[in-house]
Amino acid sequence: MLTVNAYGATSATEPLVPMTIERREPGPTDVLIEIKYAGICHSDIHTVREEWGDIPFPLVPGHEIAGVVAAVGDRVTRHRVGDRVGVGCMVDSCRECASCRKGLEQYCLKGATMTYGGRDRDGNVTHGGYSTHVVVDQDFVLGIPEGIGLDEAAPLLCAGITLYSPLHHWGAGPGKKVAIVGLGGLGHMGVKIAHAMGADVTVLSQSLKKREDGLRLGADHYYATSDPATFELLAGTFDLIVNTVSARVDLNAYLSLLAPDGVMVCVGAPPEPLEVQVFSLISARRSVAGSNIGGIAETQEMLDFCAAHGFGADIETIPADKINEAYERVLASDVRYRFVIDVSTLVTSGQDG
Amino acid sequence: MLTVNAYGATSATEPLVPMTIERREPGPTDVLIEIKYAGICHSDIHTVREEWGDIPFPLVPGHEIAGVVAAVGDRVTRHRVGDRVGVGCMVDSCRECASCRKGLEQYCLKGATMTYGGRDRDGNVTHGGYSTHVVVDQDFVLGIPEGIGLDEAAPLLCAGITLYSPLHHWGAGPGKKVAIVGLGGLGHMGVKIAHAMGADVTVLSQSLKKREDGLRLGADHYYATSDPATFELLAGTFDLIVNTVSARVDLNAYLSLLAPDGVMVCVGAPPEPLEVQVFSLISARRSVAGSNIGGIAETQEMLDFCAAHGFGADIETIPADKINEAYERVLASDVRYRFVIDVSTLVTSGQDG
Repeated sequence: MLTVNAYGATSATEPLVPMTIERREPGPTDVLIEIKYAGICHSDIHTVREEWGDIPFPLVPGHEIAGVVAAVGDRVTRHRVGDRVGVGCMVDSCRECASCRKGLEQYCLKGATMTYGGRDRDGNVTHGGYSTHVVVDQDFVLGIPEGIGLDEAAPLLCAGITLYSPLHHWGAGPGKKVAIVGLGGLGHMGVKIAHAMGADVTVLSQSLKKREDGLRLGADHYYATSDPATFELLAGTFDLIVNTVSARVDLNAYLSLLAPDGVMVCVGAPPEPLEVQVFSLISARRSVAGSNIGGIAETQEMLDFCAAHGFGADIETIPADKINEAYERVLASDVRYRFVIDVSTLVTSGQDG
Repeated sequence: MLTVNAYGATSATEPLVPMTIERREPGPTDVLIEIKYAGICHSDIHTVREEWGDIPFPLVPGHEIAGVVAAVGDRVTRHRVGDRVGVGCMVDSCRECASCRKGLEQYCLKGATMTYGGRDRDGNVTHGGYSTHVVVDQDFVLGIPEGIGLDEAAPLLCAGITLYSPLHHWGAGPGKKVAIVGLGGLGHMGVKIAHAMGADVTVLSQSLKKREDGLRLGADHYYATSDPATFELLAGTFDLIVNTVSARVDLNAYLSLLAPDGVMVCVGAPPEPLEVQVFSLISARRSVAGSNIGGIAETQEMLDFCAAHGFGADIETIPADKINEAYERVLASDVRYRFVIDVSTLVTSGQDG
């Protein structure tokens, strides 16, 4: 076992603290990654605060991981020492079910192994990227192309693919009108990606506060959803709406913005159910759908796409001792647009004291 | 104007009665149809009882119309006197909007002209098929192929296309597992059509009462939704579920039956909204969609498909004076599976008294 420095949660109610965790010895198909940067995702906060259910403590979150290969197992063919690599929300899946065979490991019928808070095949709890090293099977390690910094690449592993996958699956591109609801960590990636795909992009945000940012990121239009006139003006407009807001929204108001055959895709889930007026679906063959990250091959495709278009995430880099503060700022939507932890700042009091 | 015999509603609360109505003189592109049969759709009942909003009385319902061409206007090229023809839920649309240009007249952005209770271009209220004759623009008149009786063809114009369109659009066919929720007028057509398309077909019905019928119509499997074991057994099974039940259903229970990328399509709308657990959508890229009849070209395709496979609807033919009784039996689900009015029985007391 390898003992590595990390920053994690010891309970649902206390701040995260420095700690050490154990990583397995790399097996024949494993890659040992020296982590350079780890993004902070809203999911990390939900999870460690047990807002999504009980978790095993202590737990180290982080599923937006970028680093460099430090060692590889005997049978590793896909990565070499020194390669720039990333790890997202999954570190394994069954690889045999219908979903895995289609490259949809995120919908593995036996349940993919999540990067943190999951159980690996040995039954051990998985720990995420707020740590100096991680050991991951080569098939779940992505290559980060030259041309994107590791810091700005980290958030692509969750926020990037979470938006790329539905935009790609539902055909965002030239001639398509796409709306991104919410301009946060997810939404800002949605704007960049949909714009790079060639779609006509509209941001639908609570207010016009981030309008300049939205246009700079690639949006063609920007409207405030707090203004009822927005819903009148844009009725029947969009081919695709990607809703990045996890809070309860008025789904029917957004459905009215869809053109015939339009799809509204939710990538964040409120705990309470949403109400759908079925008539609104029937009257124009509209759909409400959900989408969860993306498969491994698709994640690589997304990284290559972002590199080809010359962008990563817009980030604010922080040292590890600012993680708790960053959590509060995420909850206050006070980040443009993703916090990334500089893992070189990870020192562990746990080791010494 | 032509004065024709009909059977219609004079108020939301009284039984339908014989009456006469006026039809316009056929214009250059119009077809005068001598109606032979008219199906009774649940929508007729909702409409005349004003359960879907106020309507202009008197009103003659009926949008499952089969008959023979009696006369054509000068510029009619698509139909000839003596042709077996049908008319469904629409008699016109704008023909210019994005939907009309795609052959999706049912989603006409200006609103298609409904066969009854709508307003035609002259501003006159449209009246439906419970009558001896109707005048319709040639483009909204369908050809009924040889090989289907006009009586069993009539319900295809609404019930048939309402199921054919979503089954076709969402790719029902060999290798696909399709569930039809509800075995009524719509559902029985869904079973026949999905089976003819080559899909593996399951009926999900409240009870097992109609099981033998379901299997005879082409279902491969039949389960009772009143049995909770059904939902355990079939979890994650279906690629496509078509919900023909207009009453409130537990959408989330049905969503759990969808495989990854599965779609649940509602073709009937309850007045109250349904609750959707967004997590259920996200966890397997599931969708909830709605679908409304079909376009004109697709309706012709459906009629040709049914004729090629040698089936129409399963019907019970009634004389006009049994319409009110039939309405009560529809509401009690006491029909296998569609009432069709023999229009030759239409006599009008209104003309004489």
